[in-house]
Amino acid sequence: MLRRLRNECLLRPSDLRPSQDDLEVIGVFNPGAVATEQGVVLLARVAEQAAERREDQTALPRWDVESSRVVLDWEKHDELSPVDIRVVRRRRQGLVRLTFLSHLRVFHSRDGRSIDSIEGARFEPANEYEEFGVEDPRITPIGDRFCITYVAVSRHGVATALASTKDFKSFERHGIIFYPENKDVVLFPERIGGQYYALHRPNGATPFCKPEMWLAASPDLIHWGGQEHFLGGSQVWDIGRIGAGTPPLRTAQGWLEMYHGNSRQEEDKGIGAYSAGVLLLDLENPRRILGARGQLFAPERDYERQGFVPNVVFPTGIVEQGGTALIYYGAADTCTAVVEFSLAEILKVMNRL
Amino acid sequence: MLRRLRNECLLRPSDLRPSQDDLEVIGVFNPGAVATEQGVVLLARVAEQAAERREDQTALPRWDVESSRVVLDWEKHDELSPVDIRVVRRRRQGLVRLTFLSHLRVFHSRDGRSIDSIEGARFEPANEYEEFGVEDPRITPIGDRFCITYVAVSRHGVATALASTKDFKSFERHGIIFYPENKDVVLFPERIGGQYYALHRPNGATPFCKPEMWLAASPDLIHWGGQEHFLGGSQVWDIGRIGAGTPPLRTAQGWLEMYHGNSRQEEDKGIGAYSAGVLLLDLENPRRILGARGQLFAPERDYERQGFVPNVVFPTGIVEQGGTALIYYGAADTCTAVVEFSLAEILKVMNRL
Repeated sequence: MLRRLRNECLLRPSDLRPSQDDLEVIGVFNPGAVATEQGVVLLARVAEQAAERREDQTALPRWDVESSRVVLDWEKHDELSPVDIRVVRRRRQGLVRLTFLSHLRVFHSRDGRSIDSIEGARFEPANEYEEFGVEDPRITPIGDRFCITYVAVSRHGVATALASTKDFKSFERHGIIFYPENKDVVLFPERIGGQYYALHRPNGATPFCKPEMWLAASPDLIHWGGQEHFLGGSQVWDIGRIGAGTPPLRTAQGWLEMYHGNSRQEEDKGIGAYSAGVLLLDLENPRRILGARGQLFAPERDYERQGFVPNVVFPTGIVEQGGTALIYYGAADTCTAVVEFSLAEILKVMNRL
Repeated sequence: MLRRLRNECLLRPSDLRPSQDDLEVIGVFNPGAVATEQGVVLLARVAEQAAERREDQTALPRWDVESSRVVLDWEKHDELSPVDIRVVRRRRQGLVRLTFLSHLRVFHSRDGRSIDSIEGARFEPANEYEEFGVEDPRITPIGDRFCITYVAVSRHGVATALASTKDFKSFERHGIIFYPENKDVVLFPERIGGQYYALHRPNGATPFCKPEMWLAASPDLIHWGGQEHFLGGSQVWDIGRIGAGTPPLRTAQGWLEMYHGNSRQEEDKGIGAYSAGVLLLDLENPRRILGARGQLFAPERDYERQGFVPNVVFPTGIVEQGGTALIYYGAADTCTAVVEFSLAEILKVMNRL
């Protein structure tokens, strides 16, 4: 594990007001992050559930496109069986629903280490692919725009969509770019050999493998091909599943990619612990892994060990400042935090300095 | 159900010799089909399992890339738990394997109604994405080539790959075009508004929906975008799952698409019955469904009702001859059959004539 130079919990659910009176905020986590001329912009996932409690019923929220608001479907407990804390199965059909619904909110931080204002714009669900929420954004500056990959959850499954913005006030949607089930999509910030690249994380119904990272290429960020398996977990801390974390950061030595791994073994109960690892990829050929390091950091602090999903650090944004990397991450599926590492130390543990 | 003008079982496992002495053929089914100058060419999936039986062990076949042959991994029964007749789960890791391995074989039929020769070329696994077999090809003539979408099964999951040929003797591979889990990919035979189109069938690990059909567009058959949900099952016979069957056939009234539906309800045991249905899509905008008809045909004949997976008709190829459509299909995951319908009658039941 690498030395944390600095570590702050930036946002907690209690910092925020819910988007509707009948909801409560249970998480503000998994933030996209990017350096702009006005400082660091975070786009964090805000998860909300019904504020009301009923003894024999659970509220299953969904976005109603017509009224542009969250509607609560109350279902009797005996119609539902819990899958894990996040997901319930409806007994009759075998289909699942989330117990919460997420939207995205903009937060500004001039210094990257503290939040200036919690009154930023919201990116809310807007179509049938986002009925059960929008989640886990990653931000990559490409050309004169900020490109945002985010998870769209609906009755059609868990897909990844693309949006873009110039100002984090208004957003343009570009549709689903990775069909279900696909999460943890990060875009490289520039063309490499004429093509854009993305890391993505398909998750199939038939488990020939555990969820693992794939690489794809595109001429235009919309049409994706060159599909290849990229990397699976192989160590105690990432054997359960693995997915891209932060958008790749260009360094002189290669593309620096922070990813997450989960430790869950088949025989484990519960969800397992999520840690962060690091990869270095060839600048000219991102399919080529130059260096890999086991756990970069793992759940240690209270806010990483306790929360909606305990024992989670989930890196989703990275900003370079001088010789340090500020890594923004979700802690315990509840809070947004930042950790600072020396770039030289990261490269050193991969034997690249 | 539509009147079958004619119906033949064309190929049975006993017609074929296995590809290796230590294997036996258990299925020759789900054939791609296309009209060529030399008559109809079928490319059928040939499934093989270990010829040897051991009392306390099951053989799990895999393709060994180095030796270019099928290798059998014998596993003790108490290390495995059956998922269904086709798939076993390895207890320790929770991962699954197939009990058989498929390759593809070429068959020629001058009249489209009987097989001339069973000595055609083989399309065998060739890389790490095909370790557990190649399955369920569909053939679409595009330009001067025949394009073949086929399922590639491996430790990386169940994906769909693209190959092409000019002569059905040698084949060129173009890689994975739909990452796991994705099956039942059919290509439209020409560009529409400048883009190629495909129907595909993602299948995600988290069941917000049952497996359903999506539509995608591409400039080059390699890079795919414009991802949209297309159609889910809604009737008794297709409520379990739904997927494209035959490559869309151009008619004056629209694109004719034969698809399959499965009847399995959550509370059912077993796999459910597979029937064939038909759709008519707008020639200029394939996202627009002009007409739909429930079951076109369902398992009735002995060879459709009895076999490796009972009660399956699974359309995978279509050839137009005068006013009739020859539909090639897999029967009970065991045999290859052909059924003939009047095109006028098909269009009539959709109120399009």
